[in-house]
Amino acid sequence: MSDPSEFEPVFHPRSVAIIGASNDATKFGGRTYSSLKARRFQGGLYAVNPSVTEVDGDRAYARVQDIQGPVDMAIVVVAAPHVVQTVADCAEKGVRAVQILTAGFRESGSAEGARWEDEIARIARRSGMRIVGPNCFGIYSPRSALTVLPGPDFPSEAGPVGLLAQSGGLVSFLVRRAIGLGIRFSKAVSYGNACDLNECDYLSCFGADAQTRMVGAYIEGVRDGRRLFEVARRTSLRKPIFIWKGGLTALGSRAVASHTASLGGSRRIWEGFLRQTGAIPVVGIDEMIDLMVGFLHLPDFRGRRISVVSGGGAITVAASDEVDGAGLSMPEFSKQTEKTLRALLPPSGNSVRNPLDTGPPIFLLPTVQPILEAVAASDRIDAVIVQHEVGSHSPDFVERAAQVIPSVHEASGKPFLVTMPAPTTSSDAMGVEMARRRYREWYLARGIPVFDTLHRAVRVLEAIIRYNEFLARRASRSRV
Amino acid sequence: MSDPSEFEPVFHPRSVAIIGASNDATKFGGRTYSSLKARRFQGGLYAVNPSVTEVDGDRAYARVQDIQGPVDMAIVVVAAPHVVQTVADCAEKGVRAVQILTAGFRESGSAEGARWEDEIARIARRSGMRIVGPNCFGIYSPRSALTVLPGPDFPSEAGPVGLLAQSGGLVSFLVRRAIGLGIRFSKAVSYGNACDLNECDYLSCFGADAQTRMVGAYIEGVRDGRRLFEVARRTSLRKPIFIWKGGLTALGSRAVASHTASLGGSRRIWEGFLRQTGAIPVVGIDEMIDLMVGFLHLPDFRGRRISVVSGGGAITVAASDEVDGAGLSMPEFSKQTEKTLRALLPPSGNSVRNPLDTGPPIFLLPTVQPILEAVAASDRIDAVIVQHEVGSHSPDFVERAAQVIPSVHEASGKPFLVTMPAPTTSSDAMGVEMARRRYREWYLARGIPVFDTLHRAVRVLEAIIRYNEFLARRASRSRV
Repeated sequence: MSDPSEFEPVFHPRSVAIIGASNDATKFGGRTYSSLKARRFQGGLYAVNPSVTEVDGDRAYARVQDIQGPVDMAIVVVAAPHVVQTVADCAEKGVRAVQILTAGFRESGSAEGARWEDEIARIARRSGMRIVGPNCFGIYSPRSALTVLPGPDFPSEAGPVGLLAQSGGLVSFLVRRAIGLGIRFSKAVSYGNACDLNECDYLSCFGADAQTRMVGAYIEGVRDGRRLFEVARRTSLRKPIFIWKGGLTALGSRAVASHTASLGGSRRIWEGFLRQTGAIPVVGIDEMIDLMVGFLHLPDFRGRRISVVSGGGAITVAASDEVDGAGLSMPEFSKQTEKTLRALLPPSGNSVRNPLDTGPPIFLLPTVQPILEAVAASDRIDAVIVQHEVGSHSPDFVERAAQVIPSVHEASGKPFLVTMPAPTTSSDAMGVEMARRRYREWYLARGIPVFDTLHRAVRVLEAIIRYNEFLARRASRSRV
Repeated sequence: MSDPSEFEPVFHPRSVAIIGASNDATKFGGRTYSSLKARRFQGGLYAVNPSVTEVDGDRAYARVQDIQGPVDMAIVVVAAPHVVQTVADCAEKGVRAVQILTAGFRESGSAEGARWEDEIARIARRSGMRIVGPNCFGIYSPRSALTVLPGPDFPSEAGPVGLLAQSGGLVSFLVRRAIGLGIRFSKAVSYGNACDLNECDYLSCFGADAQTRMVGAYIEGVRDGRRLFEVARRTSLRKPIFIWKGGLTALGSRAVASHTASLGGSRRIWEGFLRQTGAIPVVGIDEMIDLMVGFLHLPDFRGRRISVVSGGGAITVAASDEVDGAGLSMPEFSKQTEKTLRALLPPSGNSVRNPLDTGPPIFLLPTVQPILEAVAASDRIDAVIVQHEVGSHSPDFVERAAQVIPSVHEASGKPFLVTMPAPTTSSDAMGVEMARRRYREWYLARGIPVFDTLHRAVRVLEAIIRYNEFLARRASRSRV
């Protein structure tokens, strides 16, 4: 499956039937139906449930076959023993894609569950109908008003990120957390046991999808390593893919079997796999979201010469250790730049070498702008990272920085990154955290990526540079 | 210096003179004076400044020698060219300890600054007066109402953590961030260029201090490696010390020179140093604070057999990978425990193996307590980590967990840890973040450490176990 139009019924169905729709909001079937209705799904939306006549005031059909018009997609939430028959009904109706949220198949460890799952896959193969799941939270597709079960409130606007994960919890957690970082999704899928469509299909679909500019993937088990290798290699040439492989330890592999009935794998094989495909390895949700923020704002970044500007010596030391550890460089400024900076700072309590320690922010208000202009103007520097703390003790400086950084970024054309560690943890200090989030949103809206720590900012730059070097190597090879 | 009483005037002066006290709140001298006054410093507090007659309505002395009673400590904020004379005045007055906040000494790179610094050290040696700094934010000592320059609002209650750092920014950032995690300090010192008292002295002082149960140290340069080794080794046997060494890369080492005129050092030497002393290596503020939280609540933890309980398969896979990576184990439950758990959970969508995947929290309300009791009762398990998300979609479950976890912890006597990743980043979702912080405070107040991620929880357990194994090895060696 590589023609994106084949995925139309999966991500952009024109009509959806919820099989197992219910009036009980604590049940999957109640949640799913009310959620899709509230999101104003544009096509036909049908409730199927033989034990009631109405769901949420709408007619309930006894069987999917009773629906008059075409049904592109069915979302199945009936109990596991009824799923095979339901899927057979869907095939008879001519449904084109089925999301099976119900669990209790191969991952349960029971022979019966495994048999049901095989039967479902067989019906799919015979009919050409495609299956998402079973044992998943399904699909979030903002352009088509589909959302995962725990995401009734997910953004209705779409964005450039594709996300695929076996785990439904991961999809819903990641999408929700990414909201405040300006990340929006073209489509996201939680695909559970992957009895039909699997990681290769989704990756291939996202690779071909013009609305997806980068792909995040959380993969527990791989069904066809050779095919995944080919798909990943092809996709990497078109857009960056971030892969988090769960279950690479002995214990993790055991947990994978209980979760999605998949096979874990060996770390060594995976590392080789990733290196050869150009896919970017990540571990954890934070790292994956950081990469999304980075590639959103600096997709073409390739320089390695960084300047770090901050008010505080320990930060500049830590920044230097981080930059060095990531294989980036922090060139010394020219004598002329140092002289310009020297004239803009108090005589002591700071350092005009790179990293630039501006000293306590209280002294800095009038000179923030010329200082950043001087750094950005240096032809020895490819990108500027400004670290500042949003705290209660220097609000004027933070506000001034927020005015100046975007304007210097725009005037100089040079990438700026901001790092703003959370300065408080107490429930009494919510104002500080709100201010930090607002400033972050302010910067992000102006093309300036923001990270919690220098460590994370530097790791993202490193990954972007590596990816662009990979593309360049491939391009030069294909020219030969 | 190893007798803690020698440090009395440094951390617990009975009288303090601010030399350079000012009426201008934007200046160091204005901030320092008003801050100490507001904190109700109990002993004599004197303003010294020859150009004014009053500071903040109090008499200003022209010279420190003009003060009638004894002066235990002087805080010096005059401009760098005047510091040598001021220090000489202090020696003449019989001041016992001097904090020099002023910068512009060896770290500035000027020959003059280095000369001044040497002269200050010479006066200290001749007079027996001890110097903190120069180029620092000084001392936070809650029992004696002293605080660092950017910490006018620091907690007045004391706690069991000692903190030493060359960087003043680091001390103030770390103390402030730790507040909401229930961490309080016996004393903290930012010691800048360390022209007299240095890391060995402070570590030795904290080691002997009965009110300090653990020590965090951020060290840029080491003056006397041999002595630091001996002090660290001795101190490690009495309490855990967490050392973050800045400047271990070539770039970091260069930054260290600009910041506190210190020498960086080699990573290999440091790693050997730490291994032999039993000190715990850390990188970054997050890691250091995590260790403080861990050692506060689980100082004696030594088991390696962990159970992770969460509602979500990807989390259990990630947990397994983390536990394995940290050299901990996750034993399978006994058949009996699995049977008990099986009876408490819905038939599918979960896993009763360790890690325990309880499935979506909506199903779980009535059985949270017996589930956690069954896990805690297992004699195969030394500690239980519960991961749950404080989000808007399962408030009842989160509230129920908050009631149950502390009570099962207390009844079973088994350590519990909670991990609560931040589910939102948006400034529109402050309510969720506030709830998260309140639950965190709730757990911490009940002896249950909380971490943002499983990765961090597991790393802390690993460090605590290693430290206690180190103590046991030393004890068995000394018995031989």
